[in-house]
Amino acid sequence: MRFTSEQRLDDGVVEREFTLGEIPGILWTPSFASAPVPLILLGHPPLGLRKMYPRLVARARQAAAHGFAAATIELPGSGDRPRLAGAEQAGADLRRALEAGEPVSDEIIDALVLPLVDKAVPEWQAALDVLLSLPEIGGPVGYSGGVISIGIRLAVVEPRIVAAGLFAGSFVPRTMFEEARQVTIPLHVLLQWDDEGNDRQAALDLFDAFGSKEKTLHANMGGHTGVPQFAGEDAAGFFARHLR
Amino acid sequence: MRFTSEQRLDDGVVEREFTLGEIPGILWTPSFASAPVPLILLGHPPLGLRKMYPRLVARARQAAAHGFAAATIELPGSGDRPRLAGAEQAGADLRRALEAGEPVSDEIIDALVLPLVDKAVPEWQAALDVLLSLPEIGGPVGYSGGVISIGIRLAVVEPRIVAAGLFAGSFVPRTMFEEARQVTIPLHVLLQWDDEGNDRQAALDLFDAFGSKEKTLHANMGGHTGVPQFAGEDAAGFFARHLR
Repeated sequence: MRFTSEQRLDDGVVEREFTLGEIPGILWTPSFASAPVPLILLGHPPLGLRKMYPRLVARARQAAAHGFAAATIELPGSGDRPRLAGAEQAGADLRRALEAGEPVSDEIIDALVLPLVDKAVPEWQAALDVLLSLPEIGGPVGYSGGVISIGIRLAVVEPRIVAAGLFAGSFVPRTMFEEARQVTIPLHVLLQWDDEGNDRQAALDLFDAFGSKEKTLHANMGGHTGVPQFAGEDAAGFFARHLR
Repeated sequence: MRFTSEQRLDDGVVEREFTLGEIPGILWTPSFASAPVPLILLGHPPLGLRKMYPRLVARARQAAAHGFAAATIELPGSGDRPRLAGAEQAGADLRRALEAGEPVSDEIIDALVLPLVDKAVPEWQAALDVLLSLPEIGGPVGYSGGVISIGIRLAVVEPRIVAAGLFAGSFVPRTMFEEARQVTIPLHVLLQWDDEGNDRQAALDLFDAFGSKEKTLHANMGGHTGVPQFAGEDAAGFFARHLR
């Protein structure tokens, strides 16, 4: 891991950009921490870190206000990283189906999501190795938001993640429902009730499938990007309960 | 309204029992209030105030911690109040259906719930008249919990109630779905995902039916009485947002 920039934000949060091999990332740490702090991994949709920065830094500030560090890395195929094989074809197929008002087939969803999950998850685990080796970060670790299938896979395969806040707002391959049954960590699931790009019943079925004993669904009105401010505060309360 | 007892609880909350005509009730006010405070009406299932007291006083203390008064009255047909005509028959029909593992018919639900709603709602409104005339209570007013059909009717007919926290955990007559569409105040709806006495899909349909622009569903694991502690805190946050 190589730090490439460092700045102190107005609220004292230290923001450091880094690269991990060829993967760019950002680490935010609270200003006032004297002991090693818990960490929240900030997931995001595959739109590129630069585009997602405003929302990511807002979530990082909220984490820092609770005394937590936050970190994120670029997803494979996003930003300046090389495209994923087959992703452009799958994206074109998806757009065509949506524009034609046709149901999105399992084949399209699998082609769109599974290669991304397969490549991204080991990268987030490698980032976790390095982040937890920093003296200022102690754990425990939470995972928050982004592509829900990445969150599900991480929750299954990565024992250092003790709690996850997931956003039921993207296409989910059928096979991920099986993985969801293997999740046992506490979950906080956000659902936008009128999400134009999300099948509500599928989201409720996925919530039902999770194997976790403690799982909470927070459904709010509005579309995909209309998550109300207070929903973020409730999610912060979830991490405060599980990471402290 | 006639106060019949007054005591100061260990956290300074003042608890006063009262009667309103023949209806017993309890009012809790925070100790430190200098100006008139908002009020939360505490709904409850028709099991009698005496039996419900431990849970009611816990909710009242939580309200007081936010600087809110809380009040409740005995439901018609509960505690020492005269039985409602037809209620015992409807209750017996319900038990028979549940024990036989049969679906509970619309007729049973209507007979069980509608007379209770028709009689209770004007009583809560009368209590509100008197409570808001007390110098220590200023409003705004929230309604919380209890028989969800009473909460729905109150939210429709009582303009002084500005926000409601409802518990999707009781049988709901078909006609209440129509009333739910007329509700426009902000709602916070709790759902126990594995509630043995509650049809999950019906609860989700009811949430969908509410006409409110701001409505949030919080679903948690467990049965009817298994609402986790943090769900109560989230509900308190909802009232703090809307009553302050």
